Amino acid sequence: MSAIPTPYLLYLGAATDFLGLKTARGLATFAPEKCVGEWRHDDCPYSVGLDRVTLDEGVVRGARTLVIGIANPGGRMDARVVADAVAAARAGLNVAAGLHQRLRGEPDLVAAAEAAGVQLFDVRDPPADLPVGNGRPRAGRRLLTVGTDCSVGKMYAALALTRAMQARGHAADFRATGQTGILVAGSGIAIDAVVADFIAGAVETLSPPREDGGWDLIEGQGSLFHPSFAGVSTGLLHGAQADALVLCHEVGRETLRGLSHSRVPGLAECLDANLRAARLTSPDVRAVGVCLNTASLDEAAARAACAAVEGELGLPVTDPYRFGAAPIVAEIERCFAA
Amino acid sequence: MSAIPTPYLLYLGAATDFLGLKTARGLATFAPEKCVGEWRHDDCPYSVGLDRVTLDEGVVRGARTLVIGIANPGGRMDARVVADAVAAARAGLNVAAGLHQRLRGEPDLVAAAEAAGVQLFDVRDPPADLPVGNGRPRAGRRLLTVGTDCSVGKMYAALALTRAMQARGHAADFRATGQTGILVAGSGIAIDAVVADFIAGAVETLSPPREDGGWDLIEGQGSLFHPSFAGVSTGLLHGAQADALVLCHEVGRETLRGLSHSRVPGLAECLDANLRAARLTSPDVRAVGVCLNTASLDEAAARAACAAVEGELGLPVTDPYRFGAAPIVAEIERCFAA
Repeated sequence: MSAIPTPYLLYLGAATDFLGLKTARGLATFAPEKCVGEWRHDDCPYSVGLDRVTLDEGVVRGARTLVIGIANPGGRMDARVVADAVAAARAGLNVAAGLHQRLRGEPDLVAAAEAAGVQLFDVRDPPADLPVGNGRPRAGRRLLTVGTDCSVGKMYAALALTRAMQARGHAADFRATGQTGILVAGSGIAIDAVVADFIAGAVETLSPPREDGGWDLIEGQGSLFHPSFAGVSTGLLHGAQADALVLCHEVGRETLRGLSHSRVPGLAECLDANLRAARLTSPDVRAVGVCLNTASLDEAAARAACAAVEGELGLPVTDPYRFGAAPIVAEIERCFAA
Repeated sequence: MSAIPTPYLLYLGAATDFLGLKTARGLATFAPEKCVGEWRHDDCPYSVGLDRVTLDEGVVRGARTLVIGIANPGGRMDARVVADAVAAARAGLNVAAGLHQRLRGEPDLVAAAEAAGVQLFDVRDPPADLPVGNGRPRAGRRLLTVGTDCSVGKMYAALALTRAMQARGHAADFRATGQTGILVAGSGIAIDAVVADFIAGAVETLSPPREDGGWDLIEGQGSLFHPSFAGVSTGLLHGAQADALVLCHEVGRETLRGLSHSRVPGLAECLDANLRAARLTSPDVRAVGVCLNTASLDEAAARAACAAVEGELGLPVTDPYRFGAAPIVAEIERCFAA
């Protein structure tokens, strides 16, 4: 995939599902300098905190690419989204999306892009000729973020840890496994979009051996406890061959995303299951911390929540968005001193 | 995918690789009544034990579909195979194959099929619009075969159990998850070929709720302990929502298929991990038996191997190909009495 031209105009459309704005929120948080604003309709009750602009205003501000920043669990676009993307292409913008439903599968959009001479970027398209995983030990240090559920902050945690590691002078690279991460990082592989036989092999490809003593910080996906997506999480664990795991959890989340009949697992149970599965390809894997998403709490309650989990699990606990990732970086330095 | 018309003419062509005949051998073993014969050239040294017929004789015997029963290591068809498939289409046969290389990717074959009004069945193509899994409890009883490794007899076990259940008067259906099983059953979904996000959903689609008190016997894939494919196995476990698991193992297999550096897990450890993972969507799942592939042993040693595992795990153990599946069916009847 060639590089996606920036800056982006973030498309929220008429989204009414806050969790479905994950891509837009991720970009607004981690790459605001790449975004000229957000384009949303009056029936969208949410903002990601950027300037609200129309399509035309986005063009005037110099946007090069419209990013479809919304997703429902099935990853499909409704007719209005497609129509807006067509309008953007006609206005001279490239269009990027990370949905299962591909932009190139929309004939009207393909025609509009061809007529306008702009490109369509389906960031979920996997690379051709991925290998199956082999599980052989490879050089380099790797950390994987794992979660109690989908959308609990695994990408945020991996990005925050990458930046904190770099700030401490470590060679460290974020490895994106989802559409938002790919748009933030500029490269990566959408693991949930590869053919099932190649999940682990895709992660081995994404995070190849490294000899510089540095770290790959790999973005986790799904949860071993999510009945829809645990296969992806399992292959990711095995392909990552992680030296270190960081468990991510959203405080107050009681039922799994999209599955109100399924309860979020306990943190100790979840961490134990992840360590057990990870040992298949990384026998010495260890947990180095917990990242809590405490957005629902005030600061005192957030600190108390971190302290409570720290007491329960005996690991550094932080909300990386609120309190930074330093405690976990310190634990990594302690556990993996040269 | 609509059902593949039977009977089949099995195509062996000029195959010189015995392992590559797996699909043809599976059909000849489990669905000989669906096969009018085998079509092989003089330079093919192997038979799968059916009558050797020409294309024309196959047509005269009433064949409806030519099944490409061979695969070379690359999963590709050479020019002679394509030419023979074209000849079969012109002779009025549908053509089915489970190769990576798709029949619909061969322009000459597509044209011949269109001209003759016959269909091409790429049995690895997943259905369009698969849902993501939801893990909600659904009606009906389901059994899944799981394994210590790939290619240890999970399809054979599921088919043998289906027939043994039927012979005891139970409503029972085999649910195929791989290409050979799909050709035996006439329908199914090649789970390893679906996009990773949809593994569990594909299995929920393959084995929908049933209200007749009968059983679905679902063919397992891969192994939770195989670093290449455990993601597939995990999604399959969760989508299957199995009431009963049968563990499959090949006696004497010491390292994982394709990964000589990885050891086959112990049976107790493997069964325990499968039960633990399965409980996410089926809390009351239980093991009902073990199927050993004892092809490498003489009969006395095979019986001794079964007895040893029975003593270790406290479950009925059989080689279904050699000794039948009755002990496991009896355990199912005991555990799930109405």
